[in-house]
Amino acid sequence: MALELYLDLYSQPCRSVYIFAKKNNIPFDLRRLSLLDGEQYGEEFGKINMIRKAPALRDGDFCLAESIAILLYLAEKFQTPDFWYPADLQQRARVNEYLSWQHMAIRMHGSKMFWLRLLIPKVLGVEVPQDKLDAALEDLNGSLKLIEEKFLQDRPFIAGDHISLADLVAIVEVMQPVGSGLDVFEGDPS
Amino acid sequence: MALELYLDLYSQPCRSVYIFAKKNNIPFDLRRLSLLDGEQYGEEFGKINMIRKAPALRDGDFCLAESIAILLYLAEKFQTPDFWYPADLQQRARVNEYLSWQHMAIRMHGSKMFWLRLLIPKVLGVEVPQDKLDAALEDLNGSLKLIEEKFLQDRPFIAGDHISLADLVAIVEVMQPVGSGLDVFEGDPS
Ligand SMILES: N[C@@H](CCC(=O)N[C@@H](CS)C(=O)NCC(=O)O)C(=O)O
Ligand SMILES: N[C@@H](CCC(=O)N[C@@H](CS)C(=O)NCC(=O)O)C(=O)O
Repeated sequence: MALELYLDLYSQPCRSVYIFAKKNNIPFDLRRLSLLDGEQYGEEFGKINMIRKAPALRDGDFCLAESIAILLYLAEKFQTPDFWYPADLQQRARVNEYLSWQHMAIRMHGSKMFWLRLLIPKVLGVEVPQDKLDAALEDLNGSLKLIEEKFLQDRPFIAGDHISLADLVAIVEVMQPVGSGLDVFEGDPS
Repeated sequence: MALELYLDLYSQPCRSVYIFAKKNNIPFDLRRLSLLDGEQYGEEFGKINMIRKAPALRDGDFCLAESIAILLYLAEKFQTPDFWYPADLQQRARVNEYLSWQHMAIRMHGSKMFWLRLLIPKVLGVEVPQDKLDAALEDLNGSLKLIEEKFLQDRPFIAGDHISLADLVAIVEVMQPVGSGLDVFEGDPS
């Protein structure tokens, strides 16, 4: 049986897994999950991932949660090209550094912006106070600045000359607040 | 020149790096950093780690932030025993899954408890409202429950029979709220 991926494509970490699998021609069965409908709380999904978040992977009787762990599992199992997760010690460390940093930074701040500007007002119908929006924007801008000034610097990609898992995980998160109508590239010439 | 580690041993991720380096006889120069004194904002440290958080590593002209990336760098560079970061595909995936999950879970919730119960009242002299403490305790308990029921299950360690980086990173975080006088093992027979 093919490997199964449980994904909701509205979710950033699900999109990074989906794009990576597609781009590398990794065969998988797509199991669609609707987070807005609460399908992560269902009995069936609980057996796949007790954390009850998407994405999740099932490969035979091996189940795995967490997008980063899934990406690394796929990269190794399907021997994807080296640039995705370079074997070189220092380049790999750059990728790991970004993948570890992003959780509490751009991922947290970009998702929050998506909630405050889109889901809370549009889905729940509750207006968010301006000072909350301002504070969230400041956090988001702090993370965007570090992506540019620390992680990219003058390089085209985080690990240097070629795209890696770090860039893939970055782009899905950077684009999420754009989905709420915020121009994250505003005023940025690069 | 030996590799340098910039650490504040009051910090959980610094302790995991310190314990790992010591336990594996990895030679390093300890550069002590006092976060409470704001030394992370100094000019010298900014050159080592623009994120301005500890831990950080310097190896010649290569600088690296993020405890998880540092642990993986040390494990590979110094070829530490396999059990720390197993080469086996599924065991490694279990370690990566935990290392990825913990950021927004036990790390976030355990640190918050330490702030609410210790630093805010004792250092800043501000009393924290009970409902905030209760909400934080609920989050922390949710993370502790997942460590037991999802990550450990009936195994002695997260990846199975032997300690790995996941367990080391877990223990420093689980112990942090204990430092604020909270018995995280209360009522738990295991
Ligand atoms: N660190 C996890 C984050 C997973 C996560 O938070 N997924 C969200 C969607 S973006 C989710 O499933 N939310 C549903 C919920 O929390 O109920 C990963 O990278 O896979
Ligand atoms: N994800 C990072 C977290 C680093 C971190 O948050 N370090 C804290 C100490 S536990 C710090 O340096 N705080 C100082 C500050 O934020 O000013 C890692 O694992 O290294």
